[in-house]
Amino acid sequence: MTQHSESRAPTENRVTLSVDAMGGDSGPAAVVEGCAKSAEKNAEIAFILHGDEGVLHGLVAQYPGLTGRCTIRNASGVVTMHEKPSAVLRNGKDTSMWSCIEAVRAGEATVAVSCGNTGALMAVSMIRLRKLPGVARPAIACLWPSRGRHGFSTMLDVGADVKADPDDLLQYALMGAAYFRNGFGEQRPRVGLLNVGTEENKGRTEYKAAYDLIEAAAELGRYEFVGFVEGGDIPTDRVDVVVTDGFTGNIALKTGEGTASLIRDFLREELKRGWLSQLGALLAMQALKRLQKRIDPRRVNGGVFLGLNGTVVKSHGSADATGVSAAIKLAFQLAQSGFTERMAHRLASVAEGRAQAAAEAAQTKPEGQTAP
Amino acid sequence: MTQHSESRAPTENRVTLSVDAMGGDSGPAAVVEGCAKSAEKNAEIAFILHGDEGVLHGLVAQYPGLTGRCTIRNASGVVTMHEKPSAVLRNGKDTSMWSCIEAVRAGEATVAVSCGNTGALMAVSMIRLRKLPGVARPAIACLWPSRGRHGFSTMLDVGADVKADPDDLLQYALMGAAYFRNGFGEQRPRVGLLNVGTEENKGRTEYKAAYDLIEAAAELGRYEFVGFVEGGDIPTDRVDVVVTDGFTGNIALKTGEGTASLIRDFLREELKRGWLSQLGALLAMQALKRLQKRIDPRRVNGGVFLGLNGTVVKSHGSADATGVSAAIKLAFQLAQSGFTERMAHRLASVAEGRAQAAAEAAQTKPEGQTAP
Repeated sequence: MTQHSESRAPTENRVTLSVDAMGGDSGPAAVVEGCAKSAEKNAEIAFILHGDEGVLHGLVAQYPGLTGRCTIRNASGVVTMHEKPSAVLRNGKDTSMWSCIEAVRAGEATVAVSCGNTGALMAVSMIRLRKLPGVARPAIACLWPSRGRHGFSTMLDVGADVKADPDDLLQYALMGAAYFRNGFGEQRPRVGLLNVGTEENKGRTEYKAAYDLIEAAAELGRYEFVGFVEGGDIPTDRVDVVVTDGFTGNIALKTGEGTASLIRDFLREELKRGWLSQLGALLAMQALKRLQKRIDPRRVNGGVFLGLNGTVVKSHGSADATGVSAAIKLAFQLAQSGFTERMAHRLASVAEGRAQAAAEAAQTKPEGQTAP
Repeated sequence: MTQHSESRAPTENRVTLSVDAMGGDSGPAAVVEGCAKSAEKNAEIAFILHGDEGVLHGLVAQYPGLTGRCTIRNASGVVTMHEKPSAVLRNGKDTSMWSCIEAVRAGEATVAVSCGNTGALMAVSMIRLRKLPGVARPAIACLWPSRGRHGFSTMLDVGADVKADPDDLLQYALMGAAYFRNGFGEQRPRVGLLNVGTEENKGRTEYKAAYDLIEAAAELGRYEFVGFVEGGDIPTDRVDVVVTDGFTGNIALKTGEGTASLIRDFLREELKRGWLSQLGALLAMQALKRLQKRIDPRRVNGGVFLGLNGTVVKSHGSADATGVSAAIKLAFQLAQSGFTERMAHRLASVAEGRAQAAAEAAQTKPEGQTAP
């Protein structure tokens, strides 16, 4: 692995992001263009780009805005979309994805960005960055366009693990609240637990246990617990952080995306039928563009891996430059706010609070009953 | 419970539906109006209406089209939206819901329609109609607007039970395929199992067992098994019947509805901003109305309870006359095709086929190994 600096190293007060330039469906050109778009809007960003040195030099040279702000790390291997995570763990040390995570592990950057294969990215991140102390299951959080005051809600887990027990769901609540607080400056995010009804006695039994844990930790976790929420509540102003297991969350996310895409297609079809509709569509073009922007999956493109020693922003594999730039913007906000450290601190203080409460409860028991 | 016929009894070749006129959010006026809409379009429908006799007589009298096609069954009680199913089972014998199901049990109608409380309706249906032989968990199937050739896909279970084991999922596949075949005249519906990835080794382990069962029963069940599908596939031309447990299905359904409603609101907001957009919206009014119709939840309003001795169509609690009429149309199609009997026959033949295959497998084993 060779190291090479473009012109000069990033200046001191810049925030450096580690970016995997390969592995996305649109190739390194889209990734570098996305970096250039972000660099143009934000003077404080610098990049470490991982991938084929020759290719990346050529691409970076096309954008004067990137001069002096990109370090290129050569990596000859690329993780493909269908490669198995276990195979990447065994044979993937020469890949751009591995190199990208390695830079976070080495402390050169606090946040990594990749468009690559989600399973492999999670596996490499888990092995190299390791889980935060006390975290059993890291999670992937997504953003969701909503009627809420910030225009987005977040949901987790959307696919890191198909299972979650009540303790995991509590940690998702804490991590999700920390993410929303740092991403949107919301001091006390509203957390809801996804279920099939909003009544306390509804749904699966393990959800009732999670309900109690999340409710009890609200003060220490600095969030407001709004109780159970339903699928229809995700894009409303009722909730900022939707907590669920990775199986349900992934299906909800993809169902939402599929529905949005269906409606977009239907709208397009209907506006093409008849000259009056076509003329109407032409006049309403700006409105339709604004709508498109509000529900554009590329804008909410950054799924974030939470619960590791370092934050990893996973962009859609099919992301174009706009999508990559959105993921980079999110990564920058999280890196700048010192998000990983703050979240680790929050998780530790809640764990300490729970241990203390348990110890106090044990002390107040009559003698001879302290041990279970 | 008194019985009263309007003018004359339904004629012989009419299909009689049992309709709970009370319990919906919009009250009996919307239900009777919905019946009148359906009666106007379809000369073959007749109704048994359950509810407050005095109120219903007054409402039915407003629609000349209902003359001679409604039998009114007096029921003084009404199941409210928040009543617990257990309470309804204990004290609900005088309610319109109970009376509505009772008419199916007595064979006066083969399909019931209600806008009432889903949990109570399922409980009363289960207790009074009983499960079909061999069915462990009845399911609720919903319709979903899609790009498929019939304009809809169906998904089940969307909320009858939060759990489902592989055998239940197989039965959902059989029941869903029978429903789609009878509802849309599709001889060999495509069945998919909802999961977090389409690769065979992905997702929860119980889903792999269900995959094998559903694949093996495809021939006997007269469907094509397309394997695992993701949330994004539900509204596509890849699949007609999406099989899942009631927890995941309910969350997917409500997430889809919530997303559609969000986009509708965003579109409306954007089209109101600026006179050019307003003019454009005016010109494109017909296109926007067609879009609205294609994604209107009222048109896909009928959730159907499958797996009982009799079919129950559950309309949204908030359904207006258009919604009620859509549910009645669906109920009519199912009643006319003799759906319940056909589905029972299909379930029995697959159970028989499985038993036979098991017996043959046992016989081919070497001696001394026939018993497990």
